[in-house]
Amino acid sequence: MLASTTETDFAAWMGAVQARVEAALARALPGAQHAPARLHRAMRYAVLEGGKRVRPLLVFAAGELAGAPQARLDAAAAAVELIHAYSLVHDDLPCMDDDVLRRGKPTVHVEFDEATAMLTGDALQALAFQLLAERWPKGDAALQLEMVRSLALAAGSRGMAGGQAIDLESTGKALTQPELEFMHVRKTGALISAAVKLGALCAGPCPAALEEYGHRVGLAFQVVDDVLDAEASTATLGKTAGKDSKQGKPTYVSAMGAARARAFAEELRAAAHAALADFGDRALRLRQLADFAVLRKF
Amino acid sequence: MLASTTETDFAAWMGAVQARVEAALARALPGAQHAPARLHRAMRYAVLEGGKRVRPLLVFAAGELAGAPQARLDAAAAAVELIHAYSLVHDDLPCMDDDVLRRGKPTVHVEFDEATAMLTGDALQALAFQLLAERWPKGDAALQLEMVRSLALAAGSRGMAGGQAIDLESTGKALTQPELEFMHVRKTGALISAAVKLGALCAGPCPAALEEYGHRVGLAFQVVDDVLDAEASTATLGKTAGKDSKQGKPTYVSAMGAARARAFAEELRAAAHAALADFGDRALRLRQLADFAVLRKF
Repeated sequence: MLASTTETDFAAWMGAVQARVEAALARALPGAQHAPARLHRAMRYAVLEGGKRVRPLLVFAAGELAGAPQARLDAAAAAVELIHAYSLVHDDLPCMDDDVLRRGKPTVHVEFDEATAMLTGDALQALAFQLLAERWPKGDAALQLEMVRSLALAAGSRGMAGGQAIDLESTGKALTQPELEFMHVRKTGALISAAVKLGALCAGPCPAALEEYGHRVGLAFQVVDDVLDAEASTATLGKTAGKDSKQGKPTYVSAMGAARARAFAEELRAAAHAALADFGDRALRLRQLADFAVLRKF
Repeated sequence: MLASTTETDFAAWMGAVQARVEAALARALPGAQHAPARLHRAMRYAVLEGGKRVRPLLVFAAGELAGAPQARLDAAAAAVELIHAYSLVHDDLPCMDDDVLRRGKPTVHVEFDEATAMLTGDALQALAFQLLAERWPKGDAALQLEMVRSLALAAGSRGMAGGQAIDLESTGKALTQPELEFMHVRKTGALISAAVKLGALCAGPCPAALEEYGHRVGLAFQVVDDVLDAEASTATLGKTAGKDSKQGKPTYVSAMGAARARAFAEELRAAAHAALADFGDRALRLRQLADFAVLRKF
């Protein structure tokens, strides 16, 4: 069966954004010819040629809806992806999830060493904020400052790092659905919401409906991650599958079963679409990304 | 012998700034009543009631010279100190320096656990950038953005995190003086210079002479740290003394001997004073801090 025109078109758009973001990241990361060479090699290894770039895709989709210049979106998308990449490097360390495989490659502490992996994550976080603070030629510094603030909040103890702390404390416990949601809104949702918000902020203040969309897609993304971790194979995922149940981590699948988790993801997809109602055709990419978040197989 | 009026006055100024900064940090750090409680407790443990607050003192001294409002200096000083505190938490981890004592207390991974210590550092770094991005009531967002950029550069792979990577690579090697300087300008100097720059930026663009002063004081501070590590006791330092030589780390003492290292620190102190020549009385606190950096016993 041939893919529909819309699907082909979406795939082409994704490919184009992924290529742009890869180039932006490659430019932003210091080259290994600059000292300290090993750290710079590890930073590039951790970030380049990896992942679906879901957060950058959301930055671009929200930014295109809002009419933002592409050069600003490059910086915002790269900054969000750097925060995501740093969190994976630290999350894979022996004192955290102790994982050896990520994006089909050995994790950073396996390929380099633990100390280098820790410094790599630390330096990637700093680089994210540096990118956001490079002045736009004719831009509004107040908007950029709001981007810094939003990303810092999403990354910090009330956002992603806090979600990971709750995740650690919850291992081996059975969480209720509200407790799971409290954790995931922080661990995964905060940065995905921030991606949508930063994309919009590249043009002007972020509409409340887009923030709503971001919250719903962020949660949907995590619910589907839990389902895939339980059902897909390591080869398909490019990371260790079945890890959550092996580590005794509470997930949407352990809390409500795979069928109800899939149904919940569907509800969140519908809610994300509903949040976009007022934007008409301009929200096409965001709608497609909500579908992608829920219907993906990897 | 009674202390001179100037000394008494300097001590009173230091005490007042330290108290202000402690209060600013206590306000900026989320309370342990907010989830995740353990992470927030660890963040407060890592930051509060500790250290000489050298970087905040430099922020205030430079800011007062430049005529900056105190509320802005609170935020800048707290942000720089949060970056410093995060670096200590990560530096003390088993995969790095593996230290159990800091500021006279068990290190964060000893008091809590390794994963919490890693997330504590990660969240403190994010909080630093969040603080700098909180809008000033009538401020210039472009200046704030320059503060974010300067702090990110100082913290990242071309600054502090890079210096630590070079430090790791250098253990067991004999470095030449230029190689040592390359490392320390990054590891310690970058953040100390940033403290001076951020203080000035709270009022307006940073004068080149202040950047010059920051570089010299930053290096002086590290040279003296090396001398104290070799000569002082653990009780006086509040951290494990003699650690550098035990770990085979190259220092100014191992490279040039204690006497020449002390003389080099004196040269840097004189150079820091020289950089302040044009500011007259307004630079009193910065001059006193250069003296303090070099003459301190702990």
